[in-house]
Amino acid sequence: MVERTSHRAAPEHTHPDDVPVQTALAALADPVRITLVRELSGCPAWTRSCGSFDVPVGKAALSHHFTVLRGAGLVEQRDEGPKRVNRLRREEFDARFPGLLALVLRED
Amino acid sequence: MVERTSHRAAPEHTHPDDVPVQTALAALADPVRITLVRELSGCPAWTRSCGSFDVPVGKAALSHHFTVLRGAGLVEQRDEGPKRVNRLRREEFDARFPGLLALVLRED
Repeated sequence: MVERTSHRAAPEHTHPDDVPVQTALAALADPVRITLVRELSGCPAWTRSCGSFDVPVGKAALSHHFTVLRGAGLVEQRDEGPKRVNRLRREEFDARFPGLLALVLRED
Repeated sequence: MVERTSHRAAPEHTHPDDVPVQTALAALADPVRITLVRELSGCPAWTRSCGSFDVPVGKAALSHHFTVLRGAGLVEQRDEGPKRVNRLRREEFDARFPGLLALVLRED
């Protein structure tokens, strides 16, 4: 039996240390991405697949939002079989932008 | 002699307490507005007129950027004769979004 591997390229990541503040702010200044970050913050790392989030956007738009989150150093992703699972890069992002995630995660 | 008054309506303001976090982030996620906020932070209140900033945008765009900054509770403006002068609402904004302005004002 041939092992099935993902047809997708592995996702590219940017470490928070390499992210300008403007990029971090822009990544978080979006209602869908705020929802993604808030939902991720409530779950253990690597337990949420991209399709598991309750956001009102299509697959292509969702993929774009995750690309923005990876590019801002907010989310790490890896492929596990057919699923792409996620981790909020909380410690690394907090170290680079102290307090910023806390503002987004608190009640408005 | 008739005293000349400004033909403009007084600017409308939003207090930081009434600003959602997404609005604050979006206001700061722009290179021109980051420059305006940084320049304002280095000057005493009410000493900078809107025309005094070194930003590469026209008058209409600049006016829009200040509208966004007022709407996010970041800037207060008042008319003094022909000039519209500015104040960074640092204390009020810091009270509402602790640490956010500091991230924008530090070196990147």
